[in-house]
Amino acid sequence: MSEFDRVIKGGTVATADWVGSTDIGIKDGRIAALGEGLESDDVVDATDRIVTPGGIDSHAHVEQRGAGGAVNVDSFATGTASAAAGGTTTLVCFALQERGRSMTDALRDYAALAEKGARVDYAFHLLVTDPHQDLLAELPALIAAGNRSIKIFTTYPDSKLEDEQVLAVFALAAKEGALVCVHAEHDRMIAWQIERLLKAGKTAPRYHAEARPMLAEAEAVHRVCAMAELTGARIQIFHLSGADSTAEIERAQARGVSVAAETCTHYLTLTRDDLDRPGFEGAKFICSPPLRTVADQEALWRYMRRGVIANVTSDHSPNDYDSPVGKMIHGPEAPFTLVPNGVPGLAARMPVLFAEGVGKGRISLEQFVALTSTNSARLFGLHPRKGTIAPGADADLVLWDPERQVTLTNALMQHAGDYTPYEGMTIKGWPTTTLLRGQIIMQDDKILGGPGSGVFLRR
Amino acid sequence: MSEFDRVIKGGTVATADWVGSTDIGIKDGRIAALGEGLESDDVVDATDRIVTPGGIDSHAHVEQRGAGGAVNVDSFATGTASAAAGGTTTLVCFALQERGRSMTDALRDYAALAEKGARVDYAFHLLVTDPHQDLLAELPALIAAGNRSIKIFTTYPDSKLEDEQVLAVFALAAKEGALVCVHAEHDRMIAWQIERLLKAGKTAPRYHAEARPMLAEAEAVHRVCAMAELTGARIQIFHLSGADSTAEIERAQARGVSVAAETCTHYLTLTRDDLDRPGFEGAKFICSPPLRTVADQEALWRYMRRGVIANVTSDHSPNDYDSPVGKMIHGPEAPFTLVPNGVPGLAARMPVLFAEGVGKGRISLEQFVALTSTNSARLFGLHPRKGTIAPGADADLVLWDPERQVTLTNALMQHAGDYTPYEGMTIKGWPTTTLLRGQIIMQDDKILGGPGSGVFLRR
Amino acid sequence: MSEFDRVIKGGTVATADWVGSTDIGIKDGRIAALGEGLESDDVVDATDRIVTPGGIDSHAHVEQRGAGGAVNVDSFATGTASAAAGGTTTLVCFALQERGRSMTDALRDYAALAEKGARVDYAFHLLVTDPHQDLLAELPALIAAGNRSIKIFTTYPDSKLEDEQVLAVFALAAKEGALVCVHAEHDRMIAWQIERLLKAGKTAPRYHAEARPMLAEAEAVHRVCAMAELTGARIQIFHLSGADSTAEIERAQARGVSVAAETCTHYLTLTRDDLDRPGFEGAKFICSPPLRTVADQEALWRYMRRGVIANVTSDHSPNDYDSPVGKMIHGPEAPFTLVPNGVPGLAARMPVLFAEGVGKGRISLEQFVALTSTNSARLFGLHPRKGTIAPGADADLVLWDPERQVTLTNALMQHAGDYTPYEGMTIKGWPTTTLLRGQIIMQDDKILGGPGSGVFLRR
Amino acid sequence: MSEFDRVIKGGTVATADWVGSTDIGIKDGRIAALGEGLESDDVVDATDRIVTPGGIDSHAHVEQRGAGGAVNVDSFATGTASAAAGGTTTLVCFALQERGRSMTDALRDYAALAEKGARVDYAFHLLVTDPHQDLLAELPALIAAGNRSIKIFTTYPDSKLEDEQVLAVFALAAKEGALVCVHAEHDRMIAWQIERLLKAGKTAPRYHAEARPMLAEAEAVHRVCAMAELTGARIQIFHLSGADSTAEIERAQARGVSVAAETCTHYLTLTRDDLDRPGFEGAKFICSPPLRTVADQEALWRYMRRGVIANVTSDHSPNDYDSPVGKMIHGPEAPFTLVPNGVPGLAARMPVLFAEGVGKGRISLEQFVALTSTNSARLFGLHPRKGTIAPGADADLVLWDPERQVTLTNALMQHAGDYTPYEGMTIKGWPTTTLLRGQIIMQDDKILGGPGSGVFLRR
Repeated sequence: MSEFDRVIKGGTVATADWVGSTDIGIKDGRIAALGEGLESDDVVDATDRIVTPGGIDSHAHVEQRGAGGAVNVDSFATGTASAAAGGTTTLVCFALQERGRSMTDALRDYAALAEKGARVDYAFHLLVTDPHQDLLAELPALIAAGNRSIKIFTTYPDSKLEDEQVLAVFALAAKEGALVCVHAEHDRMIAWQIERLLKAGKTAPRYHAEARPMLAEAEAVHRVCAMAELTGARIQIFHLSGADSTAEIERAQARGVSVAAETCTHYLTLTRDDLDRPGFEGAKFICSPPLRTVADQEALWRYMRRGVIANVTSDHSPNDYDSPVGKMIHGPEAPFTLVPNGVPGLAARMPVLFAEGVGKGRISLEQFVALTSTNSARLFGLHPRKGTIAPGADADLVLWDPERQVTLTNALMQHAGDYTPYEGMTIKGWPTTTLLRGQIIMQDDKILGGPGSGVFLRR
Repeated sequence: MSEFDRVIKGGTVATADWVGSTDIGIKDGRIAALGEGLESDDVVDATDRIVTPGGIDSHAHVEQRGAGGAVNVDSFATGTASAAAGGTTTLVCFALQERGRSMTDALRDYAALAEKGARVDYAFHLLVTDPHQDLLAELPALIAAGNRSIKIFTTYPDSKLEDEQVLAVFALAAKEGALVCVHAEHDRMIAWQIERLLKAGKTAPRYHAEARPMLAEAEAVHRVCAMAELTGARIQIFHLSGADSTAEIERAQARGVSVAAETCTHYLTLTRDDLDRPGFEGAKFICSPPLRTVADQEALWRYMRRGVIANVTSDHSPNDYDSPVGKMIHGPEAPFTLVPNGVPGLAARMPVLFAEGVGKGRISLEQFVALTSTNSARLFGLHPRKGTIAPGADADLVLWDPERQVTLTNALMQHAGDYTPYEGMTIKGWPTTTLLRGQIIMQDDKILGGPGSGVFLRR
Repeated sequence: MSEFDRVIKGGTVATADWVGSTDIGIKDGRIAALGEGLESDDVVDATDRIVTPGGIDSHAHVEQRGAGGAVNVDSFATGTASAAAGGTTTLVCFALQERGRSMTDALRDYAALAEKGARVDYAFHLLVTDPHQDLLAELPALIAAGNRSIKIFTTYPDSKLEDEQVLAVFALAAKEGALVCVHAEHDRMIAWQIERLLKAGKTAPRYHAEARPMLAEAEAVHRVCAMAELTGARIQIFHLSGADSTAEIERAQARGVSVAAETCTHYLTLTRDDLDRPGFEGAKFICSPPLRTVADQEALWRYMRRGVIANVTSDHSPNDYDSPVGKMIHGPEAPFTLVPNGVPGLAARMPVLFAEGVGKGRISLEQFVALTSTNSARLFGLHPRKGTIAPGADADLVLWDPERQVTLTNALMQHAGDYTPYEGMTIKGWPTTTLLRGQIIMQDDKILGGPGSGVFLRR
Repeated sequence: MSEFDRVIKGGTVATADWVGSTDIGIKDGRIAALGEGLESDDVVDATDRIVTPGGIDSHAHVEQRGAGGAVNVDSFATGTASAAAGGTTTLVCFALQERGRSMTDALRDYAALAEKGARVDYAFHLLVTDPHQDLLAELPALIAAGNRSIKIFTTYPDSKLEDEQVLAVFALAAKEGALVCVHAEHDRMIAWQIERLLKAGKTAPRYHAEARPMLAEAEAVHRVCAMAELTGARIQIFHLSGADSTAEIERAQARGVSVAAETCTHYLTLTRDDLDRPGFEGAKFICSPPLRTVADQEALWRYMRRGVIANVTSDHSPNDYDSPVGKMIHGPEAPFTLVPNGVPGLAARMPVLFAEGVGKGRISLEQFVALTSTNSARLFGLHPRKGTIAPGADADLVLWDPERQVTLTNALMQHAGDYTPYEGMTIKGWPTTTLLRGQIIMQDDKILGGPGSGVFLRR
């Protein structure tokens, strides 16, 4: 007779706090025990494996309507397959309230898609683009129903909020106990730059970086932090892309503003030079804020080590490259302003961070767990159900072969898109098994979790 | 036979660079010579007097239409009398383009008022409240005609510019070679605070300070500096009121942004506690940004000594107190939001700074000259015609009795308004004689310069 | 039959990473399992208790020869009783190499005292006062034998190192892989101040704070960090006492210097005003760096929350107050310079931090664990054997009654000294049980662990 | 009959405050008048010339005994010829108290040399290397006799002061009203680096820069500023060489420390790459602090524009290159540690700064005057006798041909040494006439002032 449904045996277990040897006993989808010599009829051999908590990607666009006719090619079924492939077992996606629509409706419809398709667990950010009084009146109930985060933009024509709207959302969130996630770039500075560049005929992908300078990001971070300070809101600034904007985060934290910071895998590994690849290839790397410099990458690593940056996400935004509804929606000569923004990254996020961070000695294994899982769980109200390996937590686990060398290809990403920005990159360390609430949903690059097996996480 | 029309004899002459004994020979309204033993039929005895360049007040509202029905009670005739009384011989006033009107028209009309009434020399800031394409198209000619500065607001319903408008003005000014002066407060943060305060029934004058927190000023300074950096504009932020906002100026200067800073006499000598005077008296001290704290005053003095702040102006805004078109336009119980903003200060500016600064050892006499005259002359393109005592410069001079003790009263201010915020303050040091282009326009508190004797300064 | 020697049942377990419900199974002195429903013949009921890892106090002076004839009144037997009383299960004490003596000898003698008397586990810092060539030559073997930290002073006549000696120690430590702990105050600035004060007859205890100004601490921190940067040494600055010196730590961390920071309970809860208590009472609070201000306390809490400060220790320095070999060694009128330095704090450390930190919402329970145990374990090479609650770790555990109110008295401290600086302070939260490697060494304020039951921790 | 002994006619006169056209009337060696149309029998035509105050070089080693047997090849006669050639009319040199000797004696002997040889005016810094009680007791009288500045070193075996000595000198200077000038480098960090480099066989001149890293300079600046803050001394840090150390100056100024900063021509124009010239040529560029990077140069220019750096001096230290008592005193293969420090620069200082600063638009003409003359006059108590062009000031004047292109050679420098580090540099702008108290001491590169014509300046 076995006490446990399954035991993970012989691995090196890593949390944000601790790395050591222990078996993990699983029962009813949860971690029931840690200890040596745990027994079960179903034993997963973790010898020579590192076992981490399942990843949490709190910033992923999946099956979300794109802007300007571009199509987000990943459904929940494909997006969560990609997640599982890369060791991620929880997504926080965006219930997008398009202008003129109700958030309640948007959330209901989007939740239905997730319920049907998701192979990993999920929660929702309430993505508010139009915070008029009626819309704001909807939010308390939705927050209370377990959607404890709001996403807003300070840029993009279809989604940007003006400062008075930001203040209204912040004040409401402070009152209702929700975290507000902010895409912070100064929209008008960017518009001014774009106009200058287009007038000068500077339309190639590489001008995307110039169009959205770090100055515009740092300004917006400073401004948004000031509004959080005034209203007492808890916020996170998404996708810090480099040194100057993250310096503003640190200044705000130092004076007591409740602001967390996020960066993404691509800001740590790619640069604006990638926008200058031959032909239209640079379009694959168009995302906002844009990729910056090697010096910015180094700054981000430092800020991660020092705890100023809390987590690393994918900002997964899957547009096909060679497609009339993707990067080439306006053809291969289109100005950068007409190229859909975003890079895919769900599967690559954790392995790339493992290799570039842990493998190259930039961060410790504990920090890797904190940055990919624990801190996100804390920020978004999922802790301690998610984000750690401890009794009572969901048995979301990833087994890593730390020695395995892998050359990244689009096929390995297991998403629906036709490219990965990491094509050809060779990394060391790869997830061999992903468990969701005790079930193996990925084994040796094969996705075993079915659509709909993920559950909604009420926060 | 006399070589000079007039000689100032035996004084201690002070410039931003130098303090020493010399006579000053004046011919045709200009300084013709400095030296010992200069002779003239008309000798002004400056024994025991300090002689400084005439003051330049680059921030004074005179005969300007007020907002919301309140009346600026000073005409050019009275406002410039007050200037002369306090040792100021040059004003830069505001040609206000009200929304929907042409700037050319506004400037023409306002220039006519000045030409008729001014007893001291003057120039104009182009105060832009509505920078649409046609309006912007007017500006190059007006700038080229000698009005090399633009004033904009980031707050107030009738005058605030949005960031895209700020960028447009900055870009134009950079191209045309004009300086942009900015009232920098974050309008939306203030509106949000006001709404909260009014809802809570907090309407007394003292809540004005809370309604416009330093945070909103510091944020706007940071943002405006970022836009100046992007566009390459030369700017000055007006009326820094304390530590945090001036710290943002210093950060911007350090990274090479061309931004100058100004503070005003009242921020150096009054505090938010004055807003809490009995009854409705606090309304006399309502100005924006609001008065801050003693710690902020100390910070401002430090920033002045270190050169971060370039000049001290009056931001003269003369509203009667006990008047149906003044501070009490909505009665003595009106919420602070309905009280016209502004304090008068033209006459007090230099004597108060002399006493509080030089007299108390906070700044040197040279720094006093720099802060009240020379730096303003440089910033606004009046140097070296104005702002110094040197051959060829206009003979704008002030003789100070450094030992004279004066208790300030409204009568001494010689403006049209019915109060001074400095009522009852005793200071040491007082201007006894003011000369404009060699003519004595004030002697022993008597105004001798007639309306219309001031001239327009093409910059 | 019981799988475990002992089970801690029904508690709320807290680590630096996680708070949750689980039983803890202990076998052979180690944590064998975490999980629900663990069985043993020996069950400790932890219902309504918080269970944390045993505290690590990495800065405690026990049975160490004092300076100038004063007597450290705590033997290992009494000092470790006090530790156990307050939930601390590991001490890192100081093997003091007095000038002219061999470190090897000093360590051997001191280890013998510890082996005989210690009731909790222990390790040693190598306290170097005289790093001549022969002494330095001794260190590699001692470090390799498991004493991986060196302590040095930059002040005090009998122990201070000059900068060239600091550099030599840092370089050696970098090579041998030891951490260097530094008491950082600028000795000469202090000497200069003392001379001034004594000349002015300012000899009362309260002048101690003036004699050792924050400026002298901040300067030394900056200097020591520069030397660490040059040599590549890993260091910790001990007992940061306030804002300015900790700001220097943050600047150094930001530029990549490997420097950790420590503060002590007394800097968080007492101020320089305590030095001004009536009569000679202030002498009880004389320690170096001296107690600072409330503003400094607030800064320290902020730096703890932001991770700039790694741990909170006691700097336990037990001198009797009313004793000819204690604070009154030179009588109750002695100048502050002749009063032995130091305050006792082993027992108070964790309960006071629990109450003032967790109880008052300044830090989370996880942060409390990190600050009192986990981070010290990491810094000093004891992790994961010590500092966490995880399979394989030593079963060093503390059970806390979070609701119990206690008024602190010297008797409760269970040390040998005749006073506690916290006398009369009422706190909420108290350790009811302390376990060392599975054995109950304290139960309801009764010390059960015998002298010699602690073991040396090779690091 | 002529009112003036001499008139400088038709030039463009520049002070720190003002640039304009005026004649300058000179009588009895002083400026008697400024104005148009001044008449004299002796007219110097300044058409197309810029006229600035004579330069003040407050940091020049002339006829001073060198360290380690190296010979300072410039006597007062040759050094002041070089000064006059480059537009400098005042030197502040160093009365060096060698250890064991009296300062009174040292000053008397050195003053005799100056009196005999100087062609320009001069004052003395009291260079203290050995501040024991007797020596300190000598200083008040020497300061009161007009030598209001003390120079100290924190590095070099023969001259360095320990911190307790620095404090003693600072306290005395604060009491007696003298400015203390400090060579700030951390001697022990440098010694530690040198030992490492020599052990590794790294002895070529280029290792000089590595041996004295910016870190050691920045640390010493921070430490010295802290000691100035404690004692209330007024100080100037000499020869800031780059960004990090000057940043420490700014931090200290911001908190109110009375600290001025100086840089030198060579730090603005040469870099550490010059130390790597072929053969032993790098030795010509060995000075301390060492030459840094282009980024440091840019930082220095920014700090000059912002007023953080007060003046630019030569730190003239003339050692022959190809000489047994010069750079090659230990032969052309000597390790960098045995090469005498210093570069000559008296004549080059002003022309190079004029060309690189004013000519290239980095500083204004007014700033050039401030940096080369006015600010030094203020700091060292020579203002307003020196440092400006105003009635009553000494008629120390330089006429510049701003259009003249000159390629620098050692011959043009007119010093005694056999090289200039600026050999071959082409600059635009050159002094054509230098006047000292109204006398022409240099005309068209010909030195006209005789030895002994300079006078001692009592301050």
